[in-house]
Formats: sequence, structure tokens, C-alpha cells
Amino acid sequence: MIRRTSRQLRIGKVTVGGDTSVVVQSMTKTDTRDIHATINQLKQLEDCGCEIVRVAVPDKEAATSLATIKKGVSLPIIADIHFDYRLALGALKAGVDGLRLNPGNMGDKEQVSKVVAAAKEREVPIRIGVNAGSLPADFQPRAPLAERMGNMALEQIRFMESLDFSLIKVSLKAFDVPTTIQAYQMIADKMPYPLHLGVTEAGLPRTGAIRSAIGIGVLLYQGIGDTIRVSLTAYPCEEVFVAYEILKSLGLRQRGPTLVSCPSCGRADVDIIALAEAVNKRLEKISKPIKVAVMGCVVNGPGEAKDADVGIAGGKGKGAIFRKGKVVGTVSENRFLQALMTEIESLNERGL
Amino acid sequence: MIRRTSRQLRIGKVTVGGDTSVVVQSMTKTDTRDIHATINQLKQLEDCGCEIVRVAVPDKEAATSLATIKKGVSLPIIADIHFDYRLALGALKAGVDGLRLNPGNMGDKEQVSKVVAAAKEREVPIRIGVNAGSLPADFQPRAPLAERMGNMALEQIRFMESLDFSLIKVSLKAFDVPTTIQAYQMIADKMPYPLHLGVTEAGLPRTGAIRSAIGIGVLLYQGIGDTIRVSLTAYPCEEVFVAYEILKSLGLRQRGPTLVSCPSCGRADVDIIALAEAVNKRLEKISKPIKVAVMGCVVNGPGEAKDADVGIAGGKGKGAIFRKGKVVGTVSENRFLQALMTEIESLNERGL
Repeated sequence: MIRRTSRQLRIGKVTVGGDTSVVVQSMTKTDTRDIHATINQLKQLEDCGCEIVRVAVPDKEAATSLATIKKGVSLPIIADIHFDYRLALGALKAGVDGLRLNPGNMGDKEQVSKVVAAAKEREVPIRIGVNAGSLPADFQPRAPLAERMGNMALEQIRFMESLDFSLIKVSLKAFDVPTTIQAYQMIADKMPYPLHLGVTEAGLPRTGAIRSAIGIGVLLYQGIGDTIRVSLTAYPCEEVFVAYEILKSLGLRQRGPTLVSCPSCGRADVDIIALAEAVNKRLEKISKPIKVAVMGCVVNGPGEAKDADVGIAGGKGKGAIFRKGKVVGTVSENRFLQALMTEIESLNERGL
Repeated sequence: MIRRTSRQLRIGKVTVGGDTSVVVQSMTKTDTRDIHATINQLKQLEDCGCEIVRVAVPDKEAATSLATIKKGVSLPIIADIHFDYRLALGALKAGVDGLRLNPGNMGDKEQVSKVVAAAKEREVPIRIGVNAGSLPADFQPRAPLAERMGNMALEQIRFMESLDFSLIKVSLKAFDVPTTIQAYQMIADKMPYPLHLGVTEAGLPRTGAIRSAIGIGVLLYQGIGDTIRVSLTAYPCEEVFVAYEILKSLGLRQRGPTLVSCPSCGRADVDIIALAEAVNKRLEKISKPIKVAVMGCVVNGPGEAKDADVGIAGGKGKGAIFRKGKVVGTVSENRFLQALMTEIESLNERGL
């Protein structure tokens, strides 16, 4: 994985692009005008590991609310703006750390110039957020969708550059995974700005996590992407969870424990599914990046258990407990969970 | 996506490799000696769309059971063999459609020759199933893991070829996603046989689906892979569900409905999460590949709803219902679910 080089920028206290870690974003799903509810959700997002949060700004009251919301939280806030450039000016006045403008529904150059001038004055980055669902039908109607998305972003980039503005981030989201991948690939070499990855409207968590993992994962594996947002029809911390799992799977970030567990088969003498679920439930309280292996038999059991910080390789009525690659004891089946948790908790307290 | 060309072979009635669709596999998790339970699970797997099933053969009794199991189902059965070559011979005698041998724990050339001879006589393909967790420690200990896995498979391939056997399939599974990807990439150009993809011991569904989607997805997007198995610590039909979602996301297979739904945000006037969950629950009974969009506002709502077979773009207290790209009515919020389902059911009956 050789990472694409992008120009670094800052969204409030968070650095995006260049050689910094891929940053995790989400979005509040509260009514932005409900300041109390929005601050509460922002705090929950901070607790679950979100690093930048976007907030919708559908009207003037929402834009005004941002001033109070900003004071209530330390997370960087990006105002999500569609249609009306005046809401972007209002959000900047309220002190947001970033803007997202949708070029598909904010095409007037004079209006965009005003937003760019105000953002430049405050050194606030703007994401050019192209979305397949809001691409104007008359924009290059005969080109393939991915190309249309990329070209729309490039056009807006060139325009902002002509205004001597370079605090730019770009996203090109579609529901279709290959379209999303192609759009980002197309633009990656054509401009130097950081890329915000996402598969849009990916749906409910069970399927949306899969779509997002493939779209975002393929791009990250190609070295493309500086910040990600997983779009799920769910409570926002679920988006953050999935985002970290994607990054963890590719070795790009560490966060919390990792459970290696075998799928079980006709060879297992132990109820692996129940044991893995019980271990996983207890692991939710552990924040350190401990790797735990729950394995049902001697085929891959000892190998995987050895490779983990703590592991069990089950056998007929008993299992071997591993700590950092060494067998530290054999326990009977009814003591599997307890023995594993003793090792995990001791590791969690002592440090890895 | 240009697909790697692989040599086609047949596992029972199912063709794998070449230009055929990517095939979905899973594995029974019952005790293979419990013939009744195993046949039951095989039938459930057939119902949920699994196309080939692997069955563990831990001992002689399990091998013998396969004869009765085979008679009870029409799905192709692959016997999963470790350690003992005689179990492979027993499984072949019982009439299995394929074998999986683990070269990491069955290295004796004379024994493997006997299995190959018996498989050749019956024209039964053998998967060389390398697994990171069962790689012998003394096999090329200084090489990187992915290379060791690939080389172990290549060694076994050359040996089987020397016995004039070519009904070969290959897998190279690790828990680590980049290692898995690298191992498959390394071998893809070095031999002509179909590849069975999987990320091994990927864990419980919530995280395992993400790991599997990235590992399998990156490879499929590179045109690598002829059949896939998602390894989850869960009931096997969950593996099949995730496998199809991976293939659907990349446009490689169609199966059942697809729900496009927006993540909701401070702009939504409608409870999108509840509506999407309700629609999804009803869609579980639909088998046709209908695309349904549940969208919360006017930003991407009309665009995505137009692109779906049936869609709703919500607004203040009411929403526009779309059928095949055209608005067919406006309904009040309390009738969203009913109006959508009327359209979906009508499409399901009339055909797409």
C-alpha cells in the first residue's frame, strides 16, 4: 500500500491528509435547531471515537444554532450546506471548522465566490462534496456517471483555485460501489487535495457496512483516502464503529480489541458461537487493542491462538489457554470463558 | 474489472471458474456424524442460496456418514480433510463432489499421491486449502507470511501436476486482510486454477462481515476469485447472506431486493431509520432483485428514488412516491410504508 500524497489541511484541531492517519467522520442525525439534542449527540460521537462531525444546516435557524453548538463541544464541526450559499456564510459566522458545499445544487459562481472569500478570510476548509443523487441531469449527460462526478468536482476545484483558494477537500459519493471507486480513482491523480471517502446511502447496517467496507476498503488499499465517513441508516456511533473496523482490517488504525474466532464446523467439540459471543460482550468494556482468539479445534486453533495476545484452542471437553504465544494452562470447557477473561483482564491492567 | 482467466471445473452440478459467475460456498456447523442434523442444515443452506457446501470430516464415522448425507441432498458436497489421508479416501468412496486438503497438515507425498489417484479416477476436484494458522513453522520461516502461503500452495500444485492431476482449486486464507490479499495476488499469475477466496476466522458477523467484505472485495475488484466463502462465527446462512451482499455490491451477482436508504441527518423531516427498518423487514419476503430507495429529503432523495424501481423522497409531512423513475403520487407521512409496499408488491407480482 503506497499512499497517495495529498496536501494536508486542518479542520479545527484535526489534521487531514498528507501522512497523518485516516480520520473518522460521522454526522449528527438530530434536528440542528434542537441545540441540546445536537450537543448531546456530538458528545456521544466524541465518546465513541468520532474525530470530525458534520452537521446539517437546512435553514437560517440551524445556521444560527451552530454558534451555541460550537461552544458546547470540542469536536471539529463541519456545516453541511446545500442550495443556499447564505447558509454557508451564516455557518462561517457561527464559527464552524469546515464547510461542505454540494456543487450539484450550488452552481452560481458569484454566490460560491462569496462563500470562498469568507472561508479564506477565516482559513476554513471547504469540501467539494459531489453526490451521484444530486448531479444536475444536464451536466455532461452522455458521459459515464463516475466521469461526470469527477468532472463536476474538477470544475469546482479549478474555480476555487482561480479565486486563490486551496483549503480544499473532495468527495465523490455514489450508492453504486464500482461507480464510487472509479470516480475517486479518476480524480486521485488530477488534483493534490485530500479525499474524503464514502459510499452514499449505503442503507441499514447489516448490508450498508458491507457496501461501505468494499468501496472504502478498495480505495484505501490503493492508497487513496484521507478521511472516511460510513453512511448508515442507523445511530451515528454505528457509523463510527464500522469506520474503525474498516481501518483496523487494513492495519491503518488501532482501536479496541480484535476478536479472531473460527466459524466452527463439524470438527468443533465446543460451542464456539456461544463462547465467541460471550467473550465479545465482555470485550466491549476493554479499550486497549488486545487481540483475542477463540478457536474450536486443533487445525488452526494453536496457530491462531499463538498469534494473539490471549487465545483459546478448544478440544474435547478442554482447551489450551495461550498468553502471548505460550500455553499457560489447560482448562475444562465450563471454565473457558472465565479463564480467557482472567488473562484478558490481567493484560488490560498490566498493559500489552 | 477484467477477470483473471481460470481453468473451469465442476463440483458436482456446479461449474466453478472460467467465465461463470462467482459461486457462493459455506460449511455445515453440525456434527457430521449426526446425519439428520447435517442434512437439515444442508437443506437450510440450499434454501438460503448456498451453492456448494463443505462438510468437516474429523473421523472415520464422519467419512462414512457422508454416503447417507449425499443421498439426502442435491447440493454439491466437499469433504474438509485435515491430518489423515484415509479420511479423504473414505470421503471419495462415500461419493463426495470435492475434497479440500490442507497441505499444512498433510505433507506426506505418498499419502497425497493415493488421494490424488482416487480423486482422479472419480474426476473429483481437490482444493489445496492453505491456511495461515496451520502453516508448518519450519516452512520457509524467514519469508513473509503471504509468500510462505503462496509457496506452500505452489509446491503442492507442482506435486499434483507431476501426478498428471489438474482438477485443482486453491485457497490462501489468513485472518489478516492485507496478508490474505497479497497471498492471492502473488499466486494469481503463477498458476491457471480457480481461486476460492476467504478471510479466515473473521469473527462474529458485525466485524467479520467487514473484514470479509474488504479482503474478498479487493480481490474480486481486481478480477481475482471464482468462488467465495465468508467465514463467520454464526449460523451458516449468515455467511451466505454476507457473501451475496459482497457480490451484489460489486455487481457480480443479483439476489433479492436492494435497499438504498439515506443515513438521515438534521435535514430529515421524517424518521428515516424507522421507515427503512420497516421496509427492510417487509422486503425479506420478496425474492426478486427489486431496488428500493428510502430517502429523507430533497437533496439526493429525488435523484436516488428515480434511479430505483420504487422509491420515496420524504419531505415535510409528506413524500413523493417514485415508480421506475417517475413520480406516481404524493402521500402523507403516516402512509409512507403502506404506499411503498403497495408499489413493491405490485412490481413483485407483475415482474420487473
